[in-house]
Amino acid sequence: MQSDVRSYIDDHAREFYDALKQWLTIPSISADPARAGDVRRSAQWLAGHLSGTGFPVTEVWETGSGAEPGLPAVYAEWPAADPGAPVVLIYGHHDVQPVEPLDEWDSPPFEPAERDGLILARGASDDKGQVLFHALGIGAWLASHDASAPPVTLKMIVEGEEESGSPHFADLLRRERDRLACDVIVVTDTSMWAADVPSMCTGMRGVVDAQIDVYGPERDLHSGSFGGAVPNPLHALADLLAGLHDADGRVTLPGFYDKVRPLTDAERELFARLPFDEKAWLATAGNSGAAFGEAGYSTIERLWARPTAEINGMWGGHTGPGGKTIVPREAHAKLSFRVVADQDPADVAGMLRDYVARRGPAGVEVIVTVDGPGVRPSFSPIDSPAVAAGRRAMERAFGREVLFTREGGSGPEADLTDILGAPLVFIGVGLDEDQIHAPNERVDAALLLKGAESAAYLWDELAAAGDELTGGR
Amino acid sequence: MQSDVRSYIDDHAREFYDALKQWLTIPSISADPARAGDVRRSAQWLAGHLSGTGFPVTEVWETGSGAEPGLPAVYAEWPAADPGAPVVLIYGHHDVQPVEPLDEWDSPPFEPAERDGLILARGASDDKGQVLFHALGIGAWLASHDASAPPVTLKMIVEGEEESGSPHFADLLRRERDRLACDVIVVTDTSMWAADVPSMCTGMRGVVDAQIDVYGPERDLHSGSFGGAVPNPLHALADLLAGLHDADGRVTLPGFYDKVRPLTDAERELFARLPFDEKAWLATAGNSGAAFGEAGYSTIERLWARPTAEINGMWGGHTGPGGKTIVPREAHAKLSFRVVADQDPADVAGMLRDYVARRGPAGVEVIVTVDGPGVRPSFSPIDSPAVAAGRRAMERAFGREVLFTREGGSGPEADLTDILGAPLVFIGVGLDEDQIHAPNERVDAALLLKGAESAAYLWDELAAAGDELTGGR
Repeated sequence: MQSDVRSYIDDHAREFYDALKQWLTIPSISADPARAGDVRRSAQWLAGHLSGTGFPVTEVWETGSGAEPGLPAVYAEWPAADPGAPVVLIYGHHDVQPVEPLDEWDSPPFEPAERDGLILARGASDDKGQVLFHALGIGAWLASHDASAPPVTLKMIVEGEEESGSPHFADLLRRERDRLACDVIVVTDTSMWAADVPSMCTGMRGVVDAQIDVYGPERDLHSGSFGGAVPNPLHALADLLAGLHDADGRVTLPGFYDKVRPLTDAERELFARLPFDEKAWLATAGNSGAAFGEAGYSTIERLWARPTAEINGMWGGHTGPGGKTIVPREAHAKLSFRVVADQDPADVAGMLRDYVARRGPAGVEVIVTVDGPGVRPSFSPIDSPAVAAGRRAMERAFGREVLFTREGGSGPEADLTDILGAPLVFIGVGLDEDQIHAPNERVDAALLLKGAESAAYLWDELAAAGDELTGGR
Repeated sequence: MQSDVRSYIDDHAREFYDALKQWLTIPSISADPARAGDVRRSAQWLAGHLSGTGFPVTEVWETGSGAEPGLPAVYAEWPAADPGAPVVLIYGHHDVQPVEPLDEWDSPPFEPAERDGLILARGASDDKGQVLFHALGIGAWLASHDASAPPVTLKMIVEGEEESGSPHFADLLRRERDRLACDVIVVTDTSMWAADVPSMCTGMRGVVDAQIDVYGPERDLHSGSFGGAVPNPLHALADLLAGLHDADGRVTLPGFYDKVRPLTDAERELFARLPFDEKAWLATAGNSGAAFGEAGYSTIERLWARPTAEINGMWGGHTGPGGKTIVPREAHAKLSFRVVADQDPADVAGMLRDYVARRGPAGVEVIVTVDGPGVRPSFSPIDSPAVAAGRRAMERAFGREVLFTREGGSGPEADLTDILGAPLVFIGVGLDEDQIHAPNERVDAALLLKGAESAAYLWDELAAAGDELTGGR
């Protein structure tokens, strides 16, 4: 089948690129209320395209409610001939990032260009190009197998608000839980290590956002009259924040690491084989200094597999020009914790409250506010059936070993697992240099074909895994 | 003499109050450029009044330079008959604080009112009422001694920019050092503990202002992509600031306390006799919590006699609504150190630089900026001849024991000692409840008479101290 799949894809590449470029002309910027009509057009375009590919069911799903309408998602479904075959849900999104600053684009963001093997447009990599390769992949599988239905039941959910924080996505998943029921979720919205280092993401850190407010005197006090004899909220805050880490860069919240799933030796070994150039990475951070973090872990391990506490902002007292000798009335900080498998954001929020309550200095009032439930981490063990199937599929497409990565931040992936109760496998062919979220977004056109090829093989691999995924359902 | 002095003062009280009220109609607000003419009128009024009192020399001294003109000071001089008598320089100021918010005044700030034994107007206590009692005091001394010259050579320097930070005063002192030469300086710009607890100030803390700037990456970084693996400037700043104090509330800068003049047992014992109501004091701080500071010292000792490090302001990263998961590019703090006798502001600045250089975390750049030379502390030992003379004078006027205080902040007092090389003695009869710098400033009219009486006795006491002050010059 391999050569048949590949030659089908090569034969249909031009057609695929042209379709993608047509989709990319639609400025589906979800953050811009003025573009709501374009996001809707984008959804309709995709539904039409999937329908043309052969999906017997394609629907545009509205999200949100009457009071707070959302932007539409696309749902498509193509049942396998065998009703006992695994059910696979593909996740992606059809909305795109804003395009400012416009004058930094070499060609207009919604007039797709092809140059040097790249397709350039907003959304080319994130995520339209990657969503669309699934249509090409299923076409290739059907043609090469002379079949009229895929070997697994395919469902697709392509949301229209991912770049705006997926505000209605969890509700949508709950509402449509039955129709979205599946044995495995294929997320196609991630990057590989490099064009010549194919890799799969196996996890994303979650996040807990919080704010600490410290209140002291009712008004700013003159430090000549009061300094040294009343508590200073800025001291209290500095102490609380400095105390969050020990000398080894570890987070000090009691119990913080208790549930953290340790890296396995196999993962560490595979991470270490990634050709990571720390100096070049620091340069991308615009950071001329050294890497810095939890002792005992490499930079990659710190970013992907270790939880953190970060102060994101801090303010209080006199911040204007010149000096003002006051003991300020209040001080504030915004913090975020990146959490990893198997930490629970709610636990971390509780630990922060406990820490502040225990350490909180006398004479000031300290209030901890945690923003919402947080984002849960997502994780797929590298030895799980779905990940193993994905790896085999990509290795067949790329003709070389596939390594593993994780990502430091996350989107709605944890909601997918939590609400639908199925494991994740990440099949993505984006690259760090795709400039997603920045001017001149591009995608490697050849890699999109590798994505389609990987997907085609993946349906075979998942069908072969059969009972391992369905539990013999 | 006592009854003569007192009865003279009582007989002339009405006249004194009327003169003061006339002076108080002049809105000599030094911070308001539109009031420069009024500050000048105020200087001329005082020069005229001192001349009328009998000072043979009264001059209005311009300050600043052509490029940056200042507001005028008043100089007056009345030589003793004995050329070997001590030379005493009285310091005060004739400018006043701004009056906003105007609608909180019960009567207009520059239409002096008398009510319940109080004189109410801006400047009534700070400092016109207190400057003017010297004219009444010298009149009383002369009348009661049937003399035509005081027993010490009296000089007065009454500046017009004290409420604006005395920007030209040090230059003026240097320029007129010869004419201002003196054996002792009497500062009349302080408060007593209470109307029924007469006291003398014996020192003021100085101050060192500084800013710490921490620079990390070239731009704000996404904490999902970088958090936990690069240094965070806010962490670095929080650590530097939290590390400024140990668990006992002591400042950790190495050498910080080395030169600090310890409180003597006598001072501590006298401070302890002040009827200090900590709870009431905390209420004036609008602070419902506890007092807090260096272990081993009372609240009063912490405020008056112990140096401090205070964070006055702090900012960095995201400070707006909502969360923003960034590792911010920079972080900043403003600090001030209150310094006490015999600390040198320049030493403290150096210690701060050393501390930051030694503790400064890897991977970030930390810049310490110290604002100018700082303000030196001022101090007069309670057993010094000038303070002893002042205490005896006040005890005669008040008919009860005089205790000692210090002040937590300071004005230009250190410049007086440093440039003129003479010890300070603080004779003031303001009260904390005078609402200086606030609406409805007032002064206890009877206390101004006690101030005049104290001054009259002080010239005797200082004359009697003679060689002890002049060194037999």
